[in-house]
Amino acid sequence: MLSPLTISLDAMGGDAGPEMVIPGAAVALERRPDLSFILYGQESEVKPLLDRHPSVARAARFVHCDVAVRMDDKPSQALRVGRWKSSMWRSIQAVRDGEAHVAVSAGNTGALMAMSKFCLKTPPGIERPAIAAMWPTLRGESIVLDVGATIGSDARMLVHFAVMGAAMARALFGLERPTVGLLNIGAEEVKGVEEVREAGHILRELDHPNFHYHGFVEGDDLGKGTVDVVVTEGFAGNIALKTAEGTARQISEYLRSAMTRTLAAKVGYFFARSAFQRLREKMDPRKVNGGLFLGLNGLVVKSHGGTDAEGFASAVELGREMVLGDLTRQIASDLRYTFGDGETSGASAEAAPA
Amino acid sequence: MLSPLTISLDAMGGDAGPEMVIPGAAVALERRPDLSFILYGQESEVKPLLDRHPSVARAARFVHCDVAVRMDDKPSQALRVGRWKSSMWRSIQAVRDGEAHVAVSAGNTGALMAMSKFCLKTPPGIERPAIAAMWPTLRGESIVLDVGATIGSDARMLVHFAVMGAAMARALFGLERPTVGLLNIGAEEVKGVEEVREAGHILRELDHPNFHYHGFVEGDDLGKGTVDVVVTEGFAGNIALKTAEGTARQISEYLRSAMTRTLAAKVGYFFARSAFQRLREKMDPRKVNGGLFLGLNGLVVKSHGGTDAEGFASAVELGREMVLGDLTRQIASDLRYTFGDGETSGASAEAAPA
Repeated sequence: MLSPLTISLDAMGGDAGPEMVIPGAAVALERRPDLSFILYGQESEVKPLLDRHPSVARAARFVHCDVAVRMDDKPSQALRVGRWKSSMWRSIQAVRDGEAHVAVSAGNTGALMAMSKFCLKTPPGIERPAIAAMWPTLRGESIVLDVGATIGSDARMLVHFAVMGAAMARALFGLERPTVGLLNIGAEEVKGVEEVREAGHILRELDHPNFHYHGFVEGDDLGKGTVDVVVTEGFAGNIALKTAEGTARQISEYLRSAMTRTLAAKVGYFFARSAFQRLREKMDPRKVNGGLFLGLNGLVVKSHGGTDAEGFASAVELGREMVLGDLTRQIASDLRYTFGDGETSGASAEAAPA
Repeated sequence: MLSPLTISLDAMGGDAGPEMVIPGAAVALERRPDLSFILYGQESEVKPLLDRHPSVARAARFVHCDVAVRMDDKPSQALRVGRWKSSMWRSIQAVRDGEAHVAVSAGNTGALMAMSKFCLKTPPGIERPAIAAMWPTLRGESIVLDVGATIGSDARMLVHFAVMGAAMARALFGLERPTVGLLNIGAEEVKGVEEVREAGHILRELDHPNFHYHGFVEGDDLGKGTVDVVVTEGFAGNIALKTAEGTARQISEYLRSAMTRTLAAKVGYFFARSAFQRLREKMDPRKVNGGLFLGLNGLVVKSHGGTDAEGFASAVELGREMVLGDLTRQIASDLRYTFGDGETSGASAEAAPA
């Protein structure tokens, strides 16, 4: 029987593989003792780590897999080599087969998305899944999607993203009617691209009971937290995400260099060290680690490949929240409202890549 | 006769208009006494300010204009009302007529671009001008273009941007052969959009003597300063720019709040105040104020509308550097090399918007 919160883990994913995943599962268990795991991976690598983390061993069932998808495998290559048998595939399949509520992998994004689409398929009406990221803001956190799964979305896809992102915000933030904005650029007579304007018209007319469409937002609204959900196509979304990460690192570097330059600065740093600690925590990318794949018949969370145990635990917790929020069912119901039964029951016999 | 460095100023541009522009000209003159100005604006507003800034009055010729383009005018509206006679138009016309070397305006971006295209036209072979922004990096500064003039550029346009941005880097940074990267997203099998990949092929084959094509860069390479020139189409470029600005403001806010929370933090701040001052200077957006319009038969600099005198002076200085670097001629020659005489002598009878 499926225990209340079972998470399937691709133990081989990430730059450090099981060395990061198993300790990450241990951190997640400390914070959320209600979790249980199914671990997929290479026995020779995983077993010694389970001996060192008995809490994980107790809460997990281990399944040996011969194949591990490499971080630099191309999606088509990963599908060819790793379908049916890799730890990544098996962790997703566990969700499909109802053995786990959500899969978490720190493996290669392209491969994970290709396998997730192939294994879980998209629900009726959805053409392409998106990756939703958590974005720290001055008001708390927002959700931004898509941050890289799709390139060049049409108006209909942007509307899907809005509906799915809003459902995620309801589940994650406990909001009745989160606000949704479309990422655009200002200053020009013709404001932004045609698809974005058309999506704006549709969302305005839709007047969805489960979210409030705010209108267009610009790049600087992301950090302000102007809206709970920011919708964009994946090229611009990925560039925005990486630009923000890069800017945060750049400023941290400026700060570090300024604070170690003079004796007075070092003294000041000493006094203010707890303030700096707070700042570091605020800016800690591990706290918002985890991109959720939206638009699949099942939940998959992608953890950053280079994260550590703390960061991986955040990705696991994100998956847990989505299970508790019954996200997959919520999205299906919101999409039905949005497009009616006629449309959502049509098509989407999406072909797998490869 | 045209004195060595004459800059035409739209005195009415910007949120504060002449109240910001005239003091800005005074700051620029203090730093660069070789400048002379032609000031276009409303006499009743500009004259009293010239009385208070005699240095500017001495270095400037004033030309009264009845019309001022408003910050919220649409480009077509601005052209209809302000062509031939507004302070914005006249400052650009001064460049066309050889009365000034470069025009600087803090007025509305869309209107300034529309008027610049209409008045100065694009050189042979260039379809659409771009806006190039200065980007502070860990290595110093980079140039990023386009940050919002074009939406959806084809491969040929991206190659133009690369050539023009590299010429700007040569003039501004004094580099023999600056490095150029194409902004893209990673992780996917099909790396980024078709246009970007095609532009990459062309740039690789071109192997231009005046710049080195580095390859693709991602959003986090912007802050690192991986390349001297980052090329992208305007939608993603504008979102990246505003996202970085927003992230910088967000972190400043975190820092301010952390440093004022406890007594120890305040004491620390007191000791480290010169370090914080350094940090503030590093992050001061006024120092990189000024977007250069590239791809016109003449130089136009757009200052941020909400900047102050310090920031406006930076935009004026950017214009001055471009004049000294003989940028317009350098770009013409680099484009001739790139596409040969045959291609550049063709077409580009670009129709004006409106």
